[in-house]
Amino acid sequence: MLDELKSLKDQLLFQGKFDHTDFKNIVIAGMGGSGIAGSIFSEIYDKSPIEIISDYSIPSYVDSNTLFIAISYSGNTEETISAYREAERKGAQTAAITSGGTIAKICRNSLLIPSGLQPRSALGFMIVPLILSLLPDASKDLKEASKVVENIDFSNDRIREEAISLVRARKLPVIMGFKPFESVAYRWQTQFNENSKLLAFSSSFPELDHNQIMALENSYGKENLAFYYFSGSSGKVRERIKFTIDLAGVDAKQIPVEGNSRIAQIMHLVHYGDYFSYYAALERKVEPRDVTTIEKLKKLLSQF
Amino acid sequence: MLDELKSLKDQLLFQGKFDHTDFKNIVIAGMGGSGIAGSIFSEIYDKSPIEIISDYSIPSYVDSNTLFIAISYSGNTEETISAYREAERKGAQTAAITSGGTIAKICRNSLLIPSGLQPRSALGFMIVPLILSLLPDASKDLKEASKVVENIDFSNDRIREEAISLVRARKLPVIMGFKPFESVAYRWQTQFNENSKLLAFSSSFPELDHNQIMALENSYGKENLAFYYFSGSSGKVRERIKFTIDLAGVDAKQIPVEGNSRIAQIMHLVHYGDYFSYYAALERKVEPRDVTTIEKLKKLLSQF
Repeated sequence: MLDELKSLKDQLLFQGKFDHTDFKNIVIAGMGGSGIAGSIFSEIYDKSPIEIISDYSIPSYVDSNTLFIAISYSGNTEETISAYREAERKGAQTAAITSGGTIAKICRNSLLIPSGLQPRSALGFMIVPLILSLLPDASKDLKEASKVVENIDFSNDRIREEAISLVRARKLPVIMGFKPFESVAYRWQTQFNENSKLLAFSSSFPELDHNQIMALENSYGKENLAFYYFSGSSGKVRERIKFTIDLAGVDAKQIPVEGNSRIAQIMHLVHYGDYFSYYAALERKVEPRDVTTIEKLKKLLSQF
Repeated sequence: MLDELKSLKDQLLFQGKFDHTDFKNIVIAGMGGSGIAGSIFSEIYDKSPIEIISDYSIPSYVDSNTLFIAISYSGNTEETISAYREAERKGAQTAAITSGGTIAKICRNSLLIPSGLQPRSALGFMIVPLILSLLPDASKDLKEASKVVENIDFSNDRIREEAISLVRARKLPVIMGFKPFESVAYRWQTQFNENSKLLAFSSSFPELDHNQIMALENSYGKENLAFYYFSGSSGKVRERIKFTIDLAGVDAKQIPVEGNSRIAQIMHLVHYGDYFSYYAALERKVEPRDVTTIEKLKKLLSQF
């Protein structure tokens, strides 16, 4: 698993792009460790409407004005295949990012990425083609992202300590994000789920100030949760985070963000969470690579 | 508070609409109890790209092709006002759903709804105009929705028992939704937050089968959570829910959905959660209407 984590720095220098012509809106379909690439991308891309689908069906507005991108690391995700076929029927312009499988067979415009990793460890391979193809101005930021990610590979003792402290206290993580790090907060949640086999949850500023704040103060069960938020906010959101934590009396830990560009900052926080969940798995003595239950479920479903 | 809950059946028969001409995409801005109207609506509307913003800024693609709708019950939500001003600068076609405040002053195309409720108790007034204006074919379903909601007002002993059992066990609710009930799951979460002052979380099928399922089995802290899912799923999602619960050994409770139309089903589940969180507040001996901390935060922020 550690080898997989350490491959992110090289993944971010990957030079894959997919072809596309003009479009009016983007729909990206993908689940879990593949879909997160689309969600993260949608927080840095706003030149056209963009919708991320993590389901079998796609919206009825999809037509020839739509650039539809299927992301499935294995190429065999049933929801994504179903969504892809629907998009093709509706005449959308299609592309795919995959390491093979059915998607590579049915989509001529498939960008093939290296296989052999856990999907959640191949985030770099899946997000880089989105950036290079749709945000060419931002491509230079990938080099910076590769560097900040590599720094974590070299020096992560603090993350290891935080993970050990979380697990020893038997607390579940709650990550409070804000734009453009909402999907990063969700990525942390899912990495704790898959790597550490821990339940985890996420929410987001400023939205949480309209509801969750009322529970942060006096909810029972608060003592079983560990709250985290990211540095790097500005303006009103920065004030909100400070005031919210003060008012509600939450013992929330700040996770430092590094990097100048948004892409570098995002990938820094992603990688921080990768290590955090990895070390939490080691402390729990569970195998971070193990996803037996997901595999069992896929087998059961394939009979229907 | 009970009076407010009971007003939903009448709210669903409200006859408010806002004007609009042709558009290519929709952006709805709203926070908390107001924003949820947009989120729920976006799960039944798919004729054009639609994006829900719960933040200060709007995407750069917003222009004269965009129908921008601000939803703010008070009309004074700072994030929504900021988003509205940006949309106007970008030349979007604008509309607002509000009971007054600044929004009513700055937006000529404001649909005024009755004031005096908690925003989260005015969901009917905020979602009906979206449906009547943008999904006129679905307007007949509002009558059915009003009926299923009224049924809950008459008969909710089971909900009360479930709420008492949740609070006595000192568990936090985790609601597992699926489309078109993902936003309903989130609405439950926020109603538990505001009414019951309880932390609560939500996730969604089929996405959770790609990550959360690995934690549902053996995470510590699972015993402090109460899992709920909605009936009314079909096809693969129905199989997924069954298999997930079996495989992970989760003690999840099914919440029955009633109604034929999607809108009636959604409002039934919404109202179920309204009562659930209300009774949980009573059992906890907290005041469901109280949102003092939110008000304190607004005051602090207004100084910046």
